[in-house]
Order: sequence, then structure tokens, then C-alpha cells
Amino acid sequence: MNFDLSDELKALQQRTRDFIREQVLPLENDPRQDSHGPHPALRDELVARARAAGLLTPHASVELGGLGLSHTAKAVVFEEAGYSWLGPTALNIHAPDEGNIHLMEAVASPAQKARWLVPQVQGRTRSCFAMTEPAPGAGADPGMLQTTAVRDGAGYRINGRKWFITGADGADYAIVMARMEDGTATMFLADMDQPGIVLERNMDAMDRCFTGGHGVLRFDNLYVPEADILGEPGKGFRYAQVRLAPARLTHCMRWLGQARRAHDIAVDYARRRQAFGRPLAEHEGVGFMLADNDMDLQTARLHIWHTAWLLDQGQRCNFESSRAKVVCSEAEWRVVDRCVQILGGQGVTGETAVMRIFTDMRAFRIYDGPSEVHRWSMARKIVQGEAAAAR
Amino acid sequence: MNFDLSDELKALQQRTRDFIREQVLPLENDPRQDSHGPHPALRDELVARARAAGLLTPHASVELGGLGLSHTAKAVVFEEAGYSWLGPTALNIHAPDEGNIHLMEAVASPAQKARWLVPQVQGRTRSCFAMTEPAPGAGADPGMLQTTAVRDGAGYRINGRKWFITGADGADYAIVMARMEDGTATMFLADMDQPGIVLERNMDAMDRCFTGGHGVLRFDNLYVPEADILGEPGKGFRYAQVRLAPARLTHCMRWLGQARRAHDIAVDYARRRQAFGRPLAEHEGVGFMLADNDMDLQTARLHIWHTAWLLDQGQRCNFESSRAKVVCSEAEWRVVDRCVQILGGQGVTGETAVMRIFTDMRAFRIYDGPSEVHRWSMARKIVQGEAAAAR
Amino acid sequence: MNFDLSDELKALQQRTRDFIREQVLPLENDPRQDSHGPHPALRDELVARARAAGLLTPHASVELGGLGLSHTAKAVVFEEAGYSWLGPTALNIHAPDEGNIHLMEAVASPAQKARWLVPQVQGRTRSCFAMTEPAPGAGADPGMLQTTAVRDGAGYRINGRKWFITGADGADYAIVMARMEDGTATMFLADMDQPGIVLERNMDAMDRCFTGGHGVLRFDNLYVPEADILGEPGKGFRYAQVRLAPARLTHCMRWLGQARRAHDIAVDYARRRQAFGRPLAEHEGVGFMLADNDMDLQTARLHIWHTAWLLDQGQRCNFESSRAKVVCSEAEWRVVDRCVQILGGQGVTGETAVMRIFTDMRAFRIYDGPSEVHRWSMARKIVQGEAAAAR
Amino acid sequence: MNFDLSDELKALQQRTRDFIREQVLPLENDPRQDSHGPHPALRDELVARARAAGLLTPHASVELGGLGLSHTAKAVVFEEAGYSWLGPTALNIHAPDEGNIHLMEAVASPAQKARWLVPQVQGRTRSCFAMTEPAPGAGADPGMLQTTAVRDGAGYRINGRKWFITGADGADYAIVMARMEDGTATMFLADMDQPGIVLERNMDAMDRCFTGGHGVLRFDNLYVPEADILGEPGKGFRYAQVRLAPARLTHCMRWLGQARRAHDIAVDYARRRQAFGRPLAEHEGVGFMLADNDMDLQTARLHIWHTAWLLDQGQRCNFESSRAKVVCSEAEWRVVDRCVQILGGQGVTGETAVMRIFTDMRAFRIYDGPSEVHRWSMARKIVQGEAAAAR
Repeated sequence: MNFDLSDELKALQQRTRDFIREQVLPLENDPRQDSHGPHPALRDELVARARAAGLLTPHASVELGGLGLSHTAKAVVFEEAGYSWLGPTALNIHAPDEGNIHLMEAVASPAQKARWLVPQVQGRTRSCFAMTEPAPGAGADPGMLQTTAVRDGAGYRINGRKWFITGADGADYAIVMARMEDGTATMFLADMDQPGIVLERNMDAMDRCFTGGHGVLRFDNLYVPEADILGEPGKGFRYAQVRLAPARLTHCMRWLGQARRAHDIAVDYARRRQAFGRPLAEHEGVGFMLADNDMDLQTARLHIWHTAWLLDQGQRCNFESSRAKVVCSEAEWRVVDRCVQILGGQGVTGETAVMRIFTDMRAFRIYDGPSEVHRWSMARKIVQGEAAAAR
Repeated sequence: MNFDLSDELKALQQRTRDFIREQVLPLENDPRQDSHGPHPALRDELVARARAAGLLTPHASVELGGLGLSHTAKAVVFEEAGYSWLGPTALNIHAPDEGNIHLMEAVASPAQKARWLVPQVQGRTRSCFAMTEPAPGAGADPGMLQTTAVRDGAGYRINGRKWFITGADGADYAIVMARMEDGTATMFLADMDQPGIVLERNMDAMDRCFTGGHGVLRFDNLYVPEADILGEPGKGFRYAQVRLAPARLTHCMRWLGQARRAHDIAVDYARRRQAFGRPLAEHEGVGFMLADNDMDLQTARLHIWHTAWLLDQGQRCNFESSRAKVVCSEAEWRVVDRCVQILGGQGVTGETAVMRIFTDMRAFRIYDGPSEVHRWSMARKIVQGEAAAAR
Repeated sequence: MNFDLSDELKALQQRTRDFIREQVLPLENDPRQDSHGPHPALRDELVARARAAGLLTPHASVELGGLGLSHTAKAVVFEEAGYSWLGPTALNIHAPDEGNIHLMEAVASPAQKARWLVPQVQGRTRSCFAMTEPAPGAGADPGMLQTTAVRDGAGYRINGRKWFITGADGADYAIVMARMEDGTATMFLADMDQPGIVLERNMDAMDRCFTGGHGVLRFDNLYVPEADILGEPGKGFRYAQVRLAPARLTHCMRWLGQARRAHDIAVDYARRRQAFGRPLAEHEGVGFMLADNDMDLQTARLHIWHTAWLLDQGQRCNFESSRAKVVCSEAEWRVVDRCVQILGGQGVTGETAVMRIFTDMRAFRIYDGPSEVHRWSMARKIVQGEAAAAR
Repeated sequence: MNFDLSDELKALQQRTRDFIREQVLPLENDPRQDSHGPHPALRDELVARARAAGLLTPHASVELGGLGLSHTAKAVVFEEAGYSWLGPTALNIHAPDEGNIHLMEAVASPAQKARWLVPQVQGRTRSCFAMTEPAPGAGADPGMLQTTAVRDGAGYRINGRKWFITGADGADYAIVMARMEDGTATMFLADMDQPGIVLERNMDAMDRCFTGGHGVLRFDNLYVPEADILGEPGKGFRYAQVRLAPARLTHCMRWLGQARRAHDIAVDYARRRQAFGRPLAEHEGVGFMLADNDMDLQTARLHIWHTAWLLDQGQRCNFESSRAKVVCSEAEWRVVDRCVQILGGQGVTGETAVMRIFTDMRAFRIYDGPSEVHRWSMARKIVQGEAAAAR
């Protein structure tokens, strides 16, 4: 048992921290952002800075141009990147690209990698992951998938509707989940500029940290040749799992950075702001919130590190990644909510970054499976004795 | 002991409910709103509708053209009005006008009433309440007041800076709190179009339900003649208390309406949306949240009713209004947060009204005294034996 | 709407409060108590004192010798009685007698009342309610009833096993719930000294406030003549409901008294005990707990009063009594847990009454339906639109 | 970063687990226990079994006859021992002996070790730690120490009163904290059979897992020769810190074992017990509690491991051990409270071990500093920038 980071990883942590502070934080008030997220031009500038700093797409393999980070190394680097809401965009490790890159590297064919993955790792393109559907389709329960893929000559015709598709607006390609005629699910790769893909609208979302926001897509007889199936047909749900467990955890990492940022702002404010004759921080009511923040931040970090380490050992971690997702999304949320409270009026206005972190983060308790679905899934495994978790 | 409403009040409740459903809800998606709040034109239309329905400014006295509602009657009517975020604007019972009208009716001179209060009750003007200041000024601790009023001939010169001034942009007049040369505080009335009042900017706030948003004001040598002092000089803090206890409670009422609205939307969704083979509502994890919502809504309502009844008995209710404020702001918030969770992706996007209720409501745990200040004040009274509250 | 108590009720409240303080509290350390509860001799002395004070069995009808209290009057009197853990025993309003008296008065025949109810109202006998069974029998789900009643001549033969039977040891008669040959359930009355009733053992329970503790009963071919059926055959579940809704609420009332007692002890301690240079009460961390206590106590009281008033209006209140039970059992528990924390070492030892209140109260979140069953039942009614609760 | 246990430690973990299951659990219902704790005869038998198993006093150094466990090794072994409430007694690792052994090994002179420590490590004697005093003495705030040590020839005369002295009844020696004439504090060693030490009474405590219970001691002119000062005079508070940080953490470890035990019992019950047509475990309301238990258990374990590892690195860990103490005491408590709830009636009676774990554990949120004192201390360090904790 050992909680130490290697010297190499510590150096990378420091380098990322410095990069965020010097190159990314100053751009947070850049006007090239709106209620949907950062504009492509701002994203390009951020990516260029990360590229120059040697920090672009660090989770991709070294062959592809990344740093080949292990899961535990990601835990450290992604937390640092997450300190700014623009950090993950800069490093090209934001959802959904981060998870798509991971999935593509694991499953795509060499030709597919050359065509879609290589430019994406270089930060020159973006992607989206088209799985979630409006009712009565696939939501928290992926088994309700309604989008269909029907054989048509040497390919498939895809019809259906997807929503909450993060980054759809401006994405270069999509990974599309569809139901086959035999009831199984398959993932398809498709360039977004094809006529069969329609971006109906961008949704009005509480968060605004994802380039491209969240879109509603319609597939109108979209044609996909057989060669553009990702991996093997019928393995869509299985690949979703391949993508999901690590993707859940990288969310935990990035949001931990945001929660720590909010905490730092609150600590600083509590030190300076006076009320009733002494600094806020000397009021136990405020001090207790700071202590609770520290506990929650550390709890989140420990769960992330532990689960990342298990993933590094080659375990699938379905149980542990569910657990980490619930623990982190709830602990990190409590931190940010307390920071809003400590900051008072400044917590609910743009006077500090905390309001934005608050509205950006709320969805984290929902996406990649709401807390309730994970608790249910954990309970089933506990009762069936599959989870060695409690020891 | 009796929890029944009079027939008259039940009729008014129903009339308000119908008005909101028929005349106000259809305007919620009206484009005349932005990130700061409803535009003046939308407000005018809403007010005109309430006037036509005989529901305008119902808390003002009958002499002034209101319905002369008691506090308990307000509890019932304001909850109904709050069901839509536009409802309080329509009925002219939103902060800060609602509380200002109450204060003006209690304290202003006949001439002041004729000049400022009468048109306001008629919905033709708006006002703001200029008390809160940037650090190191008056925030949660009003004793830190920095804005000064210095004698100058037959009047006073006011200098200082205020922020979080709700409705400042477009208000017709302001009630300005300032520190006198002898250290006491006084409230001054001033038309907003005077040269000494500068609206520096509108703040970027999480909520967007107040016409005029929240402004930053600067007083540059503002001249106020003695006749425009509200009530007596030196009684500013005392009047703030007159305004505060009931104003806290009307917030509880209006937000209860919003919380109930969110709950209704969540119940409806849980009935219809399927997941894992049955409606969401049949999953205990969701059902328990609905039950908790019901408990919290009823808890809030009971505290509001009880405190309103005490106010109707002529009690000052400093303790009870603090208690009701903490209980309601936290219970109502929990309701809305659970609704977001039940709605999943639709809770964090504009697909339903719940996202907006969530972002509108967060500040309620902060303004009119954050929970922490009220808990501290309650504790002091409990320990000193002043609060007969526990029995 | 009116929260005032009648002068008559205020006088009764004060009389009960004085009685508890003067006649009951001094007996709390009486040695005639053990880990199962007060001994019969102590009970007799307490009952004699209440009789002398004119406060015995106040919920029974005036004809029977009680005070004929309404539900709202019970709310006030039972809270006062509950201030001491011996108070409900003194007033003959403790579970299960209180609920059994209520049920008998509503359902029993004149002959049954003369035989069993009259002496019980006079405090000369005690009863038990034999419903709960070991697995796989009736627990939180009463439908799993296993005890059988089989026709035998002019009566029935009852066989089965019951546990958690409060007050069984020393009870004079039992109300026994059994399943008929046609699958319906019936309540039978039986004297406890009959050969077919065996008290197997007294259970080792966390609480120790019930005379007779909690027993395990076995029915070995117990013969019950037809005349001793309570009410009509086949209506056992319906009568259980008649008993349950008010019985739940009287638990809330009595435990509110205990929670208030714990709070009073904690307030007193926090005023006196010094730590880190000032009284505990001046530490916000402690003060906030006192404020939270006050909120929880008042929340419980308001729910009790409201539900009691509905019962007085003749409503069945299945939903509202579930809600009050969950709200009160959880709020009152939080109060007592906080008091333990404030008292530190004295909270977890017999130095104050709080330890005992803590261990006595924990079961309240479980009996009469655990919180989870009530939440589930509430959710069902909310979703089916049966609960007008949210408004 | 590495969460793996060495093969050696895994073997020791398994050996401890087997020992507890085979040698200790069967003694849990042994009658040689009462409301104060296990009797000396039962303790002797347990210690003999651990000695035979080679598991006695494993935290003592190898030279003294222990296993010389590191803090991380203790984390693993103590959790296993804690699975039974008799386990820590068997292994001689219960409070206060565990911490006293640690302190004596660090500070005592060779002669003191030979006289007091050697037999204690061999399980032949017991000790107590006399620090806490009745008001207005030392409680959560050790600075309020009232017991005095006054120079008298070649030694000191000690006068004062102590309470909550765990294990006092039957202890062979005491470590006594007293205030010197110069205001500093010193620790003294004294055999308990001396005339100046009076055990006034044993306290009536909620827990009953400590041999000897908790006593009230009076020092009446107790004479202690200079040679029996522990370490150096005037360093009492500093040594208390040496003892405290690790002692806090070993509490977390042992209680984690108890919480896991309760969870195992609840999982087993939820699998078997039916309600409303299916096993309890298939009700989400129950399943969610099991999932929350798993999260809390793992959270506690991760904090323990992390802090133990820091201690192994030679850090003082005042901040981290406070944090771990609050996190663990609250998380483990939530687990046990949920288990009570899941078990229903069986959770509040002696039908399972859970009731006892519940009453044994409550004090853990209080002793070694209540949560409130640790939060306050953490807050101070966070604000002063001493805690690098948040990263």
C-alpha cells in the first residue's frame, strides 16, 4: 500500500498545474463563449496552447501522439486540468472526446483510426457519442434503444432521434448506437456532414462548459457502409461498457478539479470577508463548511485513485466505478453548494467563478447514469455476493 | 386550533390559481425575457392582466386599492401566485416591491404615500431597496453600513455604493439606507432619475425572475431633502426589521409555489416515463423522493401558516420568521433538487420549467439572511431563554 | 386558520405539565425498573398519582371515565405527558393500551367493554396487541399473517407465534390477530391467563419504557368462543387501520415530549459548560444544533397538530398519518441524536436522561411501519393522485 | 500509488479473520459479560486464545513480543479484529491499552517498560488513561485540566477527580495527567492499588465492550515518586498528542470492523426476509441503503489507509487524523444506523448483534474529540494554509 506519486508524475502534475494557471485561467473571461459553451475559435486557441506545452490528449497512447497515461496518472493530471472549466477543452480530455478516443483506440480498425482517431488526437477534430434518445427511447436504461439500423446492400440505413448529444454542433464525426434487426445493438461511425444527419437544435442546458453544447440529432435514412461499423456488429452494449467505466471516472477527476477550485475561492473569501466583528472563517458555521469541503474533496480523490488503480490492474470495475461515480458526484456537488453558501451573494452571481461551477456541475449527478441507477446496480451486486467491495 | 380556510379565502385561492393557469403560465415562454429577468413590456402585460382579474397588489390596504390581505391570506394567495415564476410579477407582489409597499404603508408620510406609494400599488411604477453594499460594507451583517448621509442645508448628501439591488434597472424610486453623522442609520426616498444615482451595471445573476435583475448603484453626492426621509431619522435599522420579518415570509410563500410546481412536473414525468420495465414512479428510489417532496412541501406550508398567523396576532416574530426562513428555504430547495434528479436530462435543460426554478431558487438560501445567520440568531435567543419556541 | 388553544385546553396542558414535573419526574430514578421497563408496582403508583390528579386515561370517553379528548387535545396533553418516560405510563396512554382502548371503544360489544375495557380505563388492567410474527409471518407487511383461527364448535382454535408483543408480560388480556380459514383476518379477545397462551420469553430490547417489555407469545390451540371476537369476523385488517392511524400519531406526540426534554437538558448544559474560553452555547457549532433542534421540534408539532385536526374533522388520514409518522420519527430522532452530541460523554452515560431517551426512541423509526414502508405507501398515493397532500 | 497488500499482510489478515470467526465469535454470547463490559475471566480466556494463535498485542514491537505492525498493517489487522466486539479485547488492542502501549513504548524509561509495559504486552495486566475530568475540568478542551501535582520531597502529591476513565475498574496501573505548579502538564505512572486512588463508581454507559467499563476516579493526595513520571515533566500535552493521532485512527479501524459486521448481517437478512412479495433486498429502498453502506465502508477504509500510510512516512498527521476520525466515526455510524433500520424489530432487540453494535458505537462520535472539535481544528488549519489537505 502506497499513496506516493512517482517523481515523473509529480512533475507532470506540476507542469499541468502551471499550464492551467498561466495559460488557461486568463482565458476564462474570454468573450468567445456563450450559453452553449466555448466557441470553436476559443477551443482552437486552448488546444494550440496545450499542444505547445506538450500536454495535448495526454491519455492517448504514445504511438498516437499522447502521453500514454495510466488511469492513476489520469487521476492526477485530469484533476489539475479540471481546475479551470476550460482546462479539459485545452487538453482535449473533455467529454465526449476523451471517452471516444479511449474507445476508438481499444476497438477501431487501423483504417478507422487513421481516418478518425489520428486527427482527433491531434486536436484537429471533435466527435460526439450518439446514444441517448427521447422517450420512449434509451435513457438511464440503455436497453430501451429505438434507433434502428437496417441492412441495405453493403451497408445499413439508420433512422432515429437522439438528444443530449454533447458536442454535436461542430463535431466532425459521430459514434452512433443503433438497434439491429436481430435486436442487438451496434456502434457506427459517421461523418457529421452527411445528408442523413440533421442537427435539429441545440438544447438550452444548465451547463456551458462543452464546446458544441448538447444537441438534438435526427438520423434520416443515414447510410453507413459496413466498413464503418465500430468493432463488431452486435457488440454495441458491450463497447458502451468498455467506454463507460473509465469515462465515469474521468468525469469524477475533472469535476474534482472544479470542486477544488470552488473551495479555494471560498477559503480565500472566508479569510478576507468580515462579518459580526471577525473574518467569516472564524465563524464556526463557516469553518465547519470548509472542513466538510476538505473531507469531501479527499473522499472523492481517494475513491478516484483506488478505482483508477484497479482499472490499471486490468479489472473491469463495474461496481467500483459506479461507486466512485456516486460518491464523487455527490461529494463534489456538496462542496460546490457549500461554496455558494459561503460566498453569499457572490456565489449566486458572476462575481466569482463559483456560480458557473455550480450550474456546470449539477448535471454530473445525472449523466453517465444518475445516482439512483448506480445505487440500484450496486445493491444487486452486493446482494448477489458479486461485490467483494465491502472488504 | 383550526386549519380551515374561510370560504372567502378559498374562493380567492381558486381565483388566483385559475388566473395563474390561464393568464400567466402561457406567457412563461414569452421571448420578452433575458438572463436578467422579464422585460418591462412583459411586466406591463402581466400587471394589466392581474389588474383586469382584480388580483393586483392584493397585500396593499383596501384604501390604497389592494385587497388588504392578512398574513395568513397572503400565505395562501402568494403560494398560488408563485406557481409561475411570472406570477409574483403579475400580482405586483415580487421582491422588492412587495416589501417596500408594506414598509411604505407602515411608515411613509401622507405626502410620500401620494407621491410614491399610490402609483406603485397601481402597478404603474417599481421601486428598489438599496441596503446591501460591497465589502467592507453591509452584507449579512447590516451593522457594517458604509454609505453616508451628511447634513447639507435643508437636506442630506448621500455617498456610497450598493450592490445586489434587485430591480434597480428601471425602478422609479429607491429606498436608500445610509449612515448618519451620529452613527445611526436612516432610510431616504429618492427618484431613480436623479443625477446623483448611477446604475454602474447589472450583475450576472443565477436567477432571472426579477424585472430589472440585480444592479450595482453608486450614490455620488445625491441630494435628498429632509422631507424625503422615510419615517424618522435614525430609525433605519428598526424599519429594516419592520420590513424584514414579513418580507422573509413572503419569500417562503412564493417559493413554495415554485417548489410545488416543480414537484407537479416531476410527478407527472414519473408517471409517464418508463425505465427498466416500469414507470419511474414505481421505482422506490423515485417514489421515496416524491414522498420526501411531499413532506418538505407540507413542512414549509405549516411553518409559513403558523408564522403568518402569529404576525396576524401582532407578534414581531423575529425568531419564528428566522426559523420559517431557514426551514422553508432548505425544504423547498431540497424539493427542487430532487425534481431535477427525477427528471434526469430534462431537469438540467430547458425541456421543462424545473431547470429554471432550480437556478432561480438557489439564492433564496442566501438573501434576507443566509441560513447560517438565522441559525446563529436563533441559537442566541434559545440560549437566552427568549424563544418560547420549543413549546 | 387558527393556532390558538382554547383556555380549557391551555389549563389542561398546564395541569399535565405540573403533574409531570411534580409527581412523575421524581420517580424516574426509582429502582423499580429494569432493562425491560418499569415494574408493575411502579406502574401502579404512577397510575394512582394520575388518578388522584384527574389525568388518568384522558383519551377515553367521559362515559367511561376519561376526559374524552379530541385528537388535537391529545396532541397537547400527550406531548406534556411524554416529557417524562414514565408520563405515558402514569396517564395510561402508553402503547399498546392507548391504541387498544381507542379500538375497543370503537368496535367492542357492550359486554366486551364491561369485561375488558372498563377496568382498563380505570388503570386496573393492562392489555397487549398480538399481531407481529416471526418470519415468514406478518411484519412490516401485515398480509403475511400466519397465525390461524380454525372453527371448533362454538368457537375457534388459534395456533401461531407472535413476537415484539409490547406489554405481554403481565398483561390481563390480548387482542389477537389471526387468519381465518377463508383467508380473511379476525381480531380475538383473550384473557392472558388461559392455558393456550404461553409467554415464551421477554425480548432483550433497546428500549425500556414499556411496562412488560416486549414478549414472544405462542398460541397452542387457544380456544376462543365466538362471543370474544372483536367486532365482526373477517375485518381484522380493517380494524388494524382504525387503530393504526391515530396510534401512529399518539406515538409522535409522546416522543415529541421526550425530544423536547432532551433538548431542554442540552440547552441547559450548553449554557453552563465552558470549552475553549466560552460557554458551549456560544460556539456556533453547538448553537446551530440547538437551532436545528428547535426547527425539528416545531416541524414535528405542526405535523401532529395538522393531522390531529384532520382526524377531528372525521378524515381517515391514512396518507397524512403516514407522513406525520415519518416526519416526526425522523425529526425527533435527529433532535435526540444532536443532544447526545452536545452533551458529549454525558450523552452516552446515565449522567443525564438523554442516553435513555436515545435508546428508548430508536425503535420509533421502525414500529407502526418503518419509514421505508410509509414512504412507499405515500409515493403510491401521490402517483395515483389520491393524495391532495401537496396542496 | 498502489493499493495492494503484501503477501505477508494478506496472510496475517486471513489468519486474523479466521481467528475471529473460529475463536472469538462463539464467545460473544458468553454470560461472563454485563452492562459494563466483559468480565476479567472472559478477557483472560480471549487473551489466552489470541496468545495461542500468535496474534496477541500485534502492534507492540517485536522486541517486546508483538508483531511490530506498521500503521498500515494495523489498519488491516485491527479491522479484522473489530469484526467481533470481543476481538480487540482478545488481541489486546482495545482502548485504552492499545494507545497506552504505543505511548509507553515511545516515551517510557527502560525501568518503566520493564515494570509496566512488559507484562501489559503479554496480556497479563491492564491499564487506564486518566485525563478527562468533570466540569469545570478537562473535557473536549484539555487546557482546562484541574488535577494538580504538587512537589513533595522526592516526588509529587496528586489531587483531583477524573471520569470516563475507560477500564479503570480492574486496571493494574494508570497514566495520570496533572497540572504542575508552573502550569504545565505532566503524565505520571501509578499502580492502581495505591491508597491515594479511589474508584468512586463505574458509570452507567451506553457501550459495554470495554473490560472494566468507564470509571470515576479520585486522587486523594496520591504520592508519585519522581522516577514514575512518564517521559519528561511538563510535556504532558505533547505526549497526549503522540498518543492521540494514532489512537484516533485505531478506533476508526476497530469500529470499521464492527460496521462491516453489521452490514454483513443486514445483507444476509435482506436476502432472506420477504415483504410485499419479494425479498427485502429487491426493494430499492433497502437496496439503496446497502449501496450507501458499501460507499461509507469503503470511504472509511480509504481514509484509514491513507492516514496510516502518512503516519508510516513519519508525518504527525494532526490534520489528517482529525479528518479521518470525523469521516470514519460518521460514516461508520450511518452504516450501523441503516442496518438497524433494515433489520426492523430485530435491529432494536438482541435478536442480532446489530443492536449492540449500535449502542456500543454511538460514543465514537464523541470520544477522542467530538466531531465538532475536529471540524473546528481542521477549519483553523485550512484557513491558515497549514493544511495541504485539499490537494
